Amino acid sequence: MPMSGTSRTRERLVVIGGDAAGMSAASQARRLKGPDELEIVAFERGHFTSYSACGIPYWVGGDVGERDDLIARTPEEHRERAIDLRMCTEVVRIDVQGRRVLARDLAAGEEAGEPSGAEYWTAYDKLVVATGARPLRPALPGIDAPNVHGVQTLDDGQALLDTLTGTPGRRAVVIGAGYIGVEMAEALVKRGYEVTVVNRGEEPMSTLDPDMGRLVHDAMTGMGIRMVNGAEVIAIPTGDDGRARAVATADAEYPADVVVLGIGVRPETALAREAGLPLGEYGGLLTDLAMRVRGHDDIWAGGDCVEVLDLVSGRERHIALGTHANKHGQVIGSNAGGGYATFPGVVGTAVSKVCDLEIARTGLREKDALAAGFRFVTVTIESTSRAGYYPGAAPMKVKMIAERRTGRLLGVQIVGREGAGKRVDVAAVALTAQMTVEQMTALDLGYAPPFSPVWDPVLVAARKAVAAVRSDR
Amino acid sequence: MPMSGTSRTRERLVVIGGDAAGMSAASQARRLKGPDELEIVAFERGHFTSYSACGIPYWVGGDVGERDDLIARTPEEHRERAIDLRMCTEVVRIDVQGRRVLARDLAAGEEAGEPSGAEYWTAYDKLVVATGARPLRPALPGIDAPNVHGVQTLDDGQALLDTLTGTPGRRAVVIGAGYIGVEMAEALVKRGYEVTVVNRGEEPMSTLDPDMGRLVHDAMTGMGIRMVNGAEVIAIPTGDDGRARAVATADAEYPADVVVLGIGVRPETALAREAGLPLGEYGGLLTDLAMRVRGHDDIWAGGDCVEVLDLVSGRERHIALGTHANKHGQVIGSNAGGGYATFPGVVGTAVSKVCDLEIARTGLREKDALAAGFRFVTVTIESTSRAGYYPGAAPMKVKMIAERRTGRLLGVQIVGREGAGKRVDVAAVALTAQMTVEQMTALDLGYAPPFSPVWDPVLVAARKAVAAVRSDR
Repeated sequence: MPMSGTSRTRERLVVIGGDAAGMSAASQARRLKGPDELEIVAFERGHFTSYSACGIPYWVGGDVGERDDLIARTPEEHRERAIDLRMCTEVVRIDVQGRRVLARDLAAGEEAGEPSGAEYWTAYDKLVVATGARPLRPALPGIDAPNVHGVQTLDDGQALLDTLTGTPGRRAVVIGAGYIGVEMAEALVKRGYEVTVVNRGEEPMSTLDPDMGRLVHDAMTGMGIRMVNGAEVIAIPTGDDGRARAVATADAEYPADVVVLGIGVRPETALAREAGLPLGEYGGLLTDLAMRVRGHDDIWAGGDCVEVLDLVSGRERHIALGTHANKHGQVIGSNAGGGYATFPGVVGTAVSKVCDLEIARTGLREKDALAAGFRFVTVTIESTSRAGYYPGAAPMKVKMIAERRTGRLLGVQIVGREGAGKRVDVAAVALTAQMTVEQMTALDLGYAPPFSPVWDPVLVAARKAVAAVRSDR
Repeated sequence: MPMSGTSRTRERLVVIGGDAAGMSAASQARRLKGPDELEIVAFERGHFTSYSACGIPYWVGGDVGERDDLIARTPEEHRERAIDLRMCTEVVRIDVQGRRVLARDLAAGEEAGEPSGAEYWTAYDKLVVATGARPLRPALPGIDAPNVHGVQTLDDGQALLDTLTGTPGRRAVVIGAGYIGVEMAEALVKRGYEVTVVNRGEEPMSTLDPDMGRLVHDAMTGMGIRMVNGAEVIAIPTGDDGRARAVATADAEYPADVVVLGIGVRPETALAREAGLPLGEYGGLLTDLAMRVRGHDDIWAGGDCVEVLDLVSGRERHIALGTHANKHGQVIGSNAGGGYATFPGVVGTAVSKVCDLEIARTGLREKDALAAGFRFVTVTIESTSRAGYYPGAAPMKVKMIAERRTGRLLGVQIVGREGAGKRVDVAAVALTAQMTVEQMTALDLGYAPPFSPVWDPVLVAARKAVAAVRSDR
C-alpha cells in the first residue's frame, strides 16, 4: 500500500480527479518536469480518465460508435508518461495543514466485498483539486429508480445505454432542456424513442433569452419531440418493480420507460468544503488568475469544480465545460511545473446543436445584463449563412445586446442552420477585447459567397445595434 | 439633356460608379436625407448596378443559375428610392475647381451609330468616386483576342459565358492563380473543360505563404487541373481567325479554346489622377478615416478604387473586395448624408474555396512581416474541424505568425475542409484588437463536439506560438 514518503527527495504533485482538468494539469506538469524532479500521483474514483463527457449524447445517439472513442487518453497512456495514476480510488479527505490526502481504494473494497476499501494517506507538496461536477438530483420521490439516469460521466453513459439496450420500452422523458437535456432528447429520438422533455423554463435552452429559445422549441417539436415548458417535476412515479414508470408534474403524468436527468450540474466540492478551501456563491472553488486556490500557495483547482470570472459582468460564475477544464489544466500544469500561465476568465461562450439547428451564445443575456446593472439596447436581425444566391444559404437569427451610450458589446445569441454556431466566436473575441458595436461594424471578417453574405450576419447585427445606441434617448 | 442646376435649392450628391461602394453610398445618403434635401445623381458606365462580382465564378460554374441572382438591386429599384441613376453613362472628367463632372452617354452614342455619345456637365455639391478596379491586362501579343476574358464585371462574365456556350472547345487556360484564377479554374472544370492554370508564383494563392499555397496546389491537381507554377506568360498565340489558340510561356505552349485572365486588378483611377486627386503607391485614391479624399472636403472615395490602411503593418494597401466596398459605401453615405461614420482600416482577411478546400488568411504573411520590419516567429499546426470522434471531423492546417518578444499576433493562414475558412475571423478580430498570442490562448471560443475539438485549432496554434515566442532567443 503506498504511504506518504518520509524521505522524499523530489517534490510530489497530487491530483484529485482524472478527467480533463486533472489529467491536463498532470500531463503539462510532466512536460515541464521529468520524473526525477517531480513525482505525480493522480486519483480517480471512476473507471476512465481524460474523456469527453460532452460526447456522451453522441455516443448514446449512435453518432459515435464506441465509448472508447471518447477517451482522449487511457490510464495506461498516462502511466507511460510517469504519472502514478490510481483508478477507482476516491480521495475522501484533504488535510491542508498536514499537506496530505486520504484516499480510499474503492476497487479493493468491492473485491473484498467490504463496504469500503482500504484507506491510506498520501503527502503532497503541491495539490490539484479537479473533482468536477455532479448532476443535480432533486429530492424527488423515485429519483433513485434504476432507470433514472444522469449523463455526467462515462459510467453514467454506460448505465444509460445498458438500460436502453437491456429493457423494453419506447418512451423516454428528459427532465431539463439545457444543453444536455436538448442533446439527450435528440439522441433518444435517434434511438427510436418517443421523447418528452419536461422543462421548468419558459422555453428550452435557458442560456438563451426566451425569444431565441423559442426557435429551439420549434426545432425540437419539428423533430417530433413533445416539449412541456414551464412545468415543474414533482415526482417520478415507480411501478411494483421499483422502476420509474412516468414523470409527474402538477398537471400531468408523462409515461416513461427511461428517465434522463438534464437539469444541470453543481461543483463537486464537498471535499474542498470540509478542508476549509474557499467556495463561492455557486459552491465552486475560488481561484486566482493562475488557478491557485485563493489563500493557498500550493493548491490549484480547475475544471467543473471551480467558479470562473465572467469578464463581461465582472462576477464569478460556474460553467461546466470541457474546453474550460482543459484550459485550466494546462494553466495549472504550467504553474505547478514551475512555469507561469494564467486563465483570466470567460465571456460565457457556448455552442450546441439539435437536429440541424445550431445554437450559440456569448456574453450576457438580457436578464444577466439587468442583474449586472447594465443599461442596454437589444436588436435582433435575420440574415443567411452564405451569400443569398449561393447554394445552401441558410437563415440565421442574431440577437445583440449593447450597453447604452457607450455601445459596449454585452452579448450575442445566434440560432440558425449550418455555419451559424461558430460565428459566435467573433463576438466572443470582441467581448474579450471590450469592443463597442461601432468598432465591430468595421471588423474585417472573411467574405466570399460560399462563406458569408457581403455583410456578415454579425456585422448586420452590429450595424443595427449602432443605430439603436445612437437613437436611444 | 440634364444640365448643371444654376438655381438649385437643395444639395446635389453625384456618384461615379454604380456598383457596391457607389450605390451603397447613394442608398445610405438617401436613408439619411430625403429628396427634398438632397438630390442624388449616379453614373454607371455599364449595364448593371449593385451586383456581386465575387459571385461571377459561381455563375460561370453553374452553382448560381441566373445572372440576375447576382444583382442585389436593379437600376429601377434605385430609381424608386429617388436616386437619379444614369446607366451606360461614363464620367470622363472631374472638374474639381468647378465642382462638376463631365458625363458621356454611351448608349446614345451607340444608338446613333456615333463614335461616342453626347457629353454634358453635371454640377455637384458632394462627390463620391467609386470607379472600381480594372483587371490587369499585360501587353501580351494576343491579349485582345475575342476569346480572352477578364471576369471583373457582369458584362465580362456574360461575355465569357457567351464564348463558353457559343463556341466549340474543351480546353481552357487560366492565367493567374489568385482567388479569381483559382475559382475560375474550378468553375471551368465544372463546365467540363480541361483546365490548365499558368501561374507566375511558386505556388497558387500567393496571398498565402508558399507552404500553405502548396496545399491549394495539391487540391487543384487532385481535381484534375494542370498547374503550371513559376511560369511567365509571354504570348497568347492566335489562329487565322484571330482567336487565341494557346497560352505560351518561355518553355511551353498550352492549347486553349478559351483564356481567362485572373491576374488581379488595379484601381481604376485614371479619372481621379487627371483631376489631381491624391493617389497612393498602388494607384488607389487616398482617403481619411471617414473615406473623404485627402485634402478634399466634399469628395469621398470607396471600393476597389481606393487604398486602405492595413492596421497590422500600418501601411496602405489595395484590396479589391466586395465586403470592403460595401462598408466604404455605408460610411460614405452616412457622412455625405450628414451623419458620421468611419472605416479605420483592414487586417487583410480573405476566404476562398476551391473544390471542398477552404482557404483563409488574415494579417501578414511571412514576407509581409519582413517587409514591414517585424521580427517574428512562425508555427504551423494540424487539427480538425470537429472533435476527432465526431462524424465529419476534417483535417485543417493553421499557420500563425507572432512578433518576437511581444508575442503580438501578426497573421494567420488556414487551409482545410468544411468549417476551416471562417475560423480565420477569430484571428481577424484578435488582430484588430492587437492581441498577443498568449491572450489568444485564453479566448473563450465556442466548443461542442460537432463544432470543434476541445481546443479549437486556432487556440492550438496560439499555444504553439506562445511556446515559440517564449523559447525564442
